[in-house]
Amino acid sequence: MEHLHQSFTVQYHYNVFFTSSLFLPENELLDSFLVNLNPAAAVKKILFVIDEGVVNAHKGLIAEIKAYFSKHNKTQLVQDILVIPGGEQVKNDTKYFDQVLEAINNYGIDRHSFVAAIGGGAVLDMVGYAATVAHRGIKHIRIPSTVLSQNDSGVGVKNGINYFNKKNFLGTFSPPVAVFNDEVFLSTLSDRDWRSGIAEAIKVALIKDAEFFEWLEANATALANRDTTAMNYQIWKCAKLHMEHIRSADPFENGSARPLDFGHWSAHKLEYLTNFEVRHGEAVAMGIALDTVYSNLSGRISAEDAQRVITLIQQLGFELTHPLLQVTEGNSHILDGLEEFREHLGGQLTITLLTGLGSGEEVHEIDADILKQAAEILNKQTTVIQH
Amino acid sequence: MEHLHQSFTVQYHYNVFFTSSLFLPENELLDSFLVNLNPAAAVKKILFVIDEGVVNAHKGLIAEIKAYFSKHNKTQLVQDILVIPGGEQVKNDTKYFDQVLEAINNYGIDRHSFVAAIGGGAVLDMVGYAATVAHRGIKHIRIPSTVLSQNDSGVGVKNGINYFNKKNFLGTFSPPVAVFNDEVFLSTLSDRDWRSGIAEAIKVALIKDAEFFEWLEANATALANRDTTAMNYQIWKCAKLHMEHIRSADPFENGSARPLDFGHWSAHKLEYLTNFEVRHGEAVAMGIALDTVYSNLSGRISAEDAQRVITLIQQLGFELTHPLLQVTEGNSHILDGLEEFREHLGGQLTITLLTGLGSGEEVHEIDADILKQAAEILNKQTTVIQH
Repeated sequence: MEHLHQSFTVQYHYNVFFTSSLFLPENELLDSFLVNLNPAAAVKKILFVIDEGVVNAHKGLIAEIKAYFSKHNKTQLVQDILVIPGGEQVKNDTKYFDQVLEAINNYGIDRHSFVAAIGGGAVLDMVGYAATVAHRGIKHIRIPSTVLSQNDSGVGVKNGINYFNKKNFLGTFSPPVAVFNDEVFLSTLSDRDWRSGIAEAIKVALIKDAEFFEWLEANATALANRDTTAMNYQIWKCAKLHMEHIRSADPFENGSARPLDFGHWSAHKLEYLTNFEVRHGEAVAMGIALDTVYSNLSGRISAEDAQRVITLIQQLGFELTHPLLQVTEGNSHILDGLEEFREHLGGQLTITLLTGLGSGEEVHEIDADILKQAAEILNKQTTVIQH
Repeated sequence: MEHLHQSFTVQYHYNVFFTSSLFLPENELLDSFLVNLNPAAAVKKILFVIDEGVVNAHKGLIAEIKAYFSKHNKTQLVQDILVIPGGEQVKNDTKYFDQVLEAINNYGIDRHSFVAAIGGGAVLDMVGYAATVAHRGIKHIRIPSTVLSQNDSGVGVKNGINYFNKKNFLGTFSPPVAVFNDEVFLSTLSDRDWRSGIAEAIKVALIKDAEFFEWLEANATALANRDTTAMNYQIWKCAKLHMEHIRSADPFENGSARPLDFGHWSAHKLEYLTNFEVRHGEAVAMGIALDTVYSNLSGRISAEDAQRVITLIQQLGFELTHPLLQVTEGNSHILDGLEEFREHLGGQLTITLLTGLGSGEEVHEIDADILKQAAEILNKQTTVIQH
């Protein structure tokens, strides 16, 4: 019998909102979003899951949320607000994932209700994953609390947890219904966390937008000195470029191309090797430095351009490299990392390298000797670039 | 700052193939599908997970699969073929889900490789769910072995497992890359399983296609007598209508309307109450009978039309109702089931009732008295319909 062909498209859309003091009673943003989405449903509930670090830094937060929903009561707040640890541990141990599922079950959160997560990228990833698979997908809202999650991971479409000691072994591509970036959460970040997220802005500028790279150069000192206006623009612009990339390319990554992974293949390995002592953004800054110097050594960009990247990374206060990124006898962790990345992509290695400030190209082979040389150059730090 | 709007569409497509003896060495269908899909990937592997019931009924199957891939060796078969129990237990106990994840991890199945499941709907649901969340989505292939999975559940877009004692509490909407319906698997089904799947054909005919309903009437005896030609057409047509519905409406069910759930709300409850002693198709046939008589009693269809439905159900060899579907003092399980279905949909109850043979309408309220009366009428079975 003739085969049957199935074909359909699904439309995905969501907004990323920028605000200050999201839960101030007079801030209508969240309430009006909740009320306007799907007004037909009879009862809509909202379950909050919050990163412990955020609760500790903002002591009044839980009370503010309760007060907010007692005023804006068209959406029913689940009074039992879940507080879970932040950072990678929340993705490593499935008990936190189970805790979210249990709350969804116990409080009768259905496909017309909401799960809202407030926290860093790890908390958003884990809660997003739980929401995505419960009842085949509950509407989830992301309220990122770090630079990194506000400008990058929190505004995208990926969720996940670690399993079998593998990063994001379990997960989905499933967009949130909305993201709320609240600048107040940034004010309490440590300098390390404030700085860390800026690495994603360097990355996306380098592969997509020369003008934004120049803006980062011009504002490096302001950013390093915790200037709020500069930070807000950096987050907005980085999120915008990230989102444009997602929609223009291959949102659910059915192909092998992953230009947004520029600088990331070695970063992932380094994070694991240091048991996440090195922050994601710090590792990405080192990964960008490595791939930038490689791009120069392999004849893709000029020494001057590579030097500008290195200078920017240093001005923002990042380290340029790490002993574990060096290739020596008995230490080829980054070569292992390259192989693991190839496996992760499925067969063919695809790495983005720079062809200019603001443009990249995909390559399918990395030369081990050049890589070793690039790592050494960064390790010396004195004469960074080969002229 | 101005909010950022994200919007994109994702295209989904797959084929449902009809064949006989899929693993006969000279049957090129599966091999050419695998080779043509994404020819760029360097290494493609395929992991098989098979329903124990199928392996027991087709003793040579595993050897045939190995011989097939030793001839058609462009795709690398994972030699360790997983055999797991069939039926609802495989969705109830997460150890089977974990087993599939472990195999995916151990054998390095990546996003360009395949997980193929052979079995009934429960096995396909569970394996599909595991494939869907591993690495954020591995390509999964469904090879349904029952009438019900070949004409309905196996050709759709849903996966899932049971959790917290709730059916499909965890799951995803995620289409397979292909479905292969092999008629050989049907030859060894028990009469109960052969019959059971036909309930979905009655359902989809009643809400979508009067002509197909008439075809079912004309072929009821042939179907009951295990006529292969009639069965093949029934499966093809039912799968076609099911797939057309998915693409024309709301593939990932973001709204509340679920016309394909006609006859299902009471069926789900009955399956649970009998611990799945009553097969899904048997329960659906009873659910269709109930909603059909309700449609008559509430003035939506004529007594003659209702009688035709009841007669067809009986001619196919189904029971019309079950003691647990009766509403008596101390037994209002189906009223509970109605409430649970409302909760599952999220707030507003939406049930499809018949307005004719081949057309349905959505209603948002069910009258408990009429429901009780409908159940009683079916229980008596003598004068089935009120004239």
